[in-house]
Amino acid sequence: MGMSAALLEELKKILPGDQVSINPTVLDQHSKDESYHTPHFPDVVVFPKNEEDVSRIMKFASEREIPVTPFGVGSSLEGHVIPYHGGISLDFQLMNQILEVRPEDFLVRIQPGVTRTQLNKELKKYGLFFPVDPGADATIGGMAATNASGTTSVRYGVMRDQVRDLKVVLADGSIIHTGSMTVKSSSGYSLSGLFVGSEGTLGAFVELTLRVYGIPEAITAARAVFPSIETAVSAVADIMSAGIQMARIELVDARSVQQVNLYNNTDFPVKPTLFMEFHGSEAGMRYDVEFAEKLAFDNQCEEFLFETDSKARNRLWEVRHNLAYAFVHKSPGKKMMVTDVVVPMSELGGAVHDARKAIDEIGLDGAVLGHVGDGNYHTIVMIDPNNKEELEKAKKLNAHLVDYAHSRGGSCTGEHGVGVGKAIYQQKEHGEALNVMKLIKNVLDPKGILNPGKIFMD
Amino acid sequence: MGMSAALLEELKKILPGDQVSINPTVLDQHSKDESYHTPHFPDVVVFPKNEEDVSRIMKFASEREIPVTPFGVGSSLEGHVIPYHGGISLDFQLMNQILEVRPEDFLVRIQPGVTRTQLNKELKKYGLFFPVDPGADATIGGMAATNASGTTSVRYGVMRDQVRDLKVVLADGSIIHTGSMTVKSSSGYSLSGLFVGSEGTLGAFVELTLRVYGIPEAITAARAVFPSIETAVSAVADIMSAGIQMARIELVDARSVQQVNLYNNTDFPVKPTLFMEFHGSEAGMRYDVEFAEKLAFDNQCEEFLFETDSKARNRLWEVRHNLAYAFVHKSPGKKMMVTDVVVPMSELGGAVHDARKAIDEIGLDGAVLGHVGDGNYHTIVMIDPNNKEELEKAKKLNAHLVDYAHSRGGSCTGEHGVGVGKAIYQQKEHGEALNVMKLIKNVLDPKGILNPGKIFMD
Repeated sequence: MGMSAALLEELKKILPGDQVSINPTVLDQHSKDESYHTPHFPDVVVFPKNEEDVSRIMKFASEREIPVTPFGVGSSLEGHVIPYHGGISLDFQLMNQILEVRPEDFLVRIQPGVTRTQLNKELKKYGLFFPVDPGADATIGGMAATNASGTTSVRYGVMRDQVRDLKVVLADGSIIHTGSMTVKSSSGYSLSGLFVGSEGTLGAFVELTLRVYGIPEAITAARAVFPSIETAVSAVADIMSAGIQMARIELVDARSVQQVNLYNNTDFPVKPTLFMEFHGSEAGMRYDVEFAEKLAFDNQCEEFLFETDSKARNRLWEVRHNLAYAFVHKSPGKKMMVTDVVVPMSELGGAVHDARKAIDEIGLDGAVLGHVGDGNYHTIVMIDPNNKEELEKAKKLNAHLVDYAHSRGGSCTGEHGVGVGKAIYQQKEHGEALNVMKLIKNVLDPKGILNPGKIFMD
Repeated sequence: MGMSAALLEELKKILPGDQVSINPTVLDQHSKDESYHTPHFPDVVVFPKNEEDVSRIMKFASEREIPVTPFGVGSSLEGHVIPYHGGISLDFQLMNQILEVRPEDFLVRIQPGVTRTQLNKELKKYGLFFPVDPGADATIGGMAATNASGTTSVRYGVMRDQVRDLKVVLADGSIIHTGSMTVKSSSGYSLSGLFVGSEGTLGAFVELTLRVYGIPEAITAARAVFPSIETAVSAVADIMSAGIQMARIELVDARSVQQVNLYNNTDFPVKPTLFMEFHGSEAGMRYDVEFAEKLAFDNQCEEFLFETDSKARNRLWEVRHNLAYAFVHKSPGKKMMVTDVVVPMSELGGAVHDARKAIDEIGLDGAVLGHVGDGNYHTIVMIDPNNKEELEKAKKLNAHLVDYAHSRGGSCTGEHGVGVGKAIYQQKEHGEALNVMKLIKNVLDPKGILNPGKIFMD
């Protein structure tokens, strides 16, 4: 009897049979994420229904020193959910209940398998929304595990800013609360912040209490075309400095617009373009949009369009929305590598310029786009992971961008997390602090069963 | 030769003589904070000039297992800086340099001994300000150590939200960086958030990189009088729900207004009163103030006044500014006990009501005031710590308020921290999570030299 079948039999003693699987299709689904990272099968996939299930699984795994890798929908981009050491893939799809909405407290309490769109559909009934938007329809548990963010973090912050409390099952099966329902607290160490972004290496989340927001009275989208990346970034700096509260402010470079035009048969100006979104009251927002327009033209903006109606807003953002598809479409059968560095705001213009130059020089083709309100920018290149030369080029690009960010006081990942893809950069980025992280990891997971091989190099 | 003199001689081998003191006046200054907690002398006070000094002191203390208690200006309210186990008081007054202002990045890099007003004086030259305002002119290092906040946290967040990076000397003298200069990062565990609020129990801060903000174009202050606490709190809920971004929103109860009237010979309406501050652009803010006024009157507001000019704003906030003085003035020779619980927003009306009832029933006299935008409220009572009966009453009030907060999903401290005063509530508040905190404490400070007796019970 193989490892998988043996584990299956043992796990069936503590969980109903339909919550444990070694079906090859199921194992395959849990062997990969959306990135170029090499797949690896788990020995078994379990589907807990509640925190008691998770606690039992964890105790079981701890006693036998079996690796446990949490799994949401597999939308991660750095191999977080790939069980490189085999063992148990802990799939949270059956724990997808919205447990409580507290509109007066602007709080919601949910299970980790709830997805972003599922949550927002429910919150809409209360006039509320959850702002963090990484693009993918990820589970909220997964988003908390990687400290995800996205286009709206310039206004609303990242996952860590939204998490008021986590219920966490630790390596030994014990269960803790990391926070409370209050807006703030100075009581003891901030464990919520520590567990957010820990990528399943310190425990498994079984419940999250999150901050939510009132749906803004009015939303306006805008698109602004610039002659150069420098002028576009300079406009962003002026808009941010003026205290205009952008809800989203995204930069797309000229090559990216060109590819969308090819893909969609459109004729948007092939120039660096800013995509903006404003949230606010009718009156306040109108003022913000007009002021932003003025500052854009002060920075050589060539075209500034804005729309308030929902459909028109989507049309205006078409290039940004279709960007990844346009590159995926042109490269059938290839996998996506998305880089994810972040630099201080003052370094952004030079950094985006450098990223485009690096792509061209290395001989790849791809998009450069940035969450320019927070200094986080991505390149998207399509590669065949089995083509050694292409993979090497992509890794060279990644390494170059990380080096560049580090040399400017930046970080190797703004929002995708470390996983396996950024583990090699942790020593350089954190120095002595990495030892502190390892001490914390080792004391909370002494047997090293929690998502081994992630964040820390094996 | 006593312990102090022996330590002095040893420390003089690693630090210049004028940076080490056992002068009784100096020891006395470092034996207490601003609270009712019993003073205790350190054996010696050291004044490091740079991180190398701090590292040397820490190595020295570690080798000899001597307690080290960091000290800013001693404005803490829960005994954080009182060296109950003797040893070394680590005074940061000579490390008070503003090292770098980066206006384009909205960042400032400072030493821990810089005070709040010193920082804002420098930032003003750049059109910037640091928003966290706990009232006292504390050091920024101390504010980070307790995760301080205050009247502006409703808009700008707490200390933890402002800290981008800390340089920390650990128990063994090694030095780490906890973060970077970027707005966000998903790289490794969030150590900045862990060290903020650790109250000197995990390491000593020697450098802080903080987020700063543009001084708002316009500021308006307002005062609104209500017939009851419930109507005032209901107005706050409506104002917050409407998405009006308050910079400050404070509640003062009727008894507190009465005491200020007596102290100042004024005749403000002896009723629950809200004090508000709005930050924004001229146009946006006017809209916010008018909308807030409408919502106040919808909730039976009896008087709504607002002012934009700086002096007039201060006059409008007179009651709030003079509140603590009014009670201190009426109780010469006594010490202040300030309670500091926080509850979810929906519980605030009942909680403030309960606090007033508890003070009256226990037979104390004092103020009830709240940072009502974030559910954090204080009572201020004046006591003679040597009067056993008074001290018991004050402790009873504290315990009652903490119990009330815990029963409503709240926390025992919103912004003052744990120190010695709230250590007895940690087990109840955190349960199993307190064990996780202890594991982290023990692995980072295996000899227990860092501010022993704080956060965790001896």
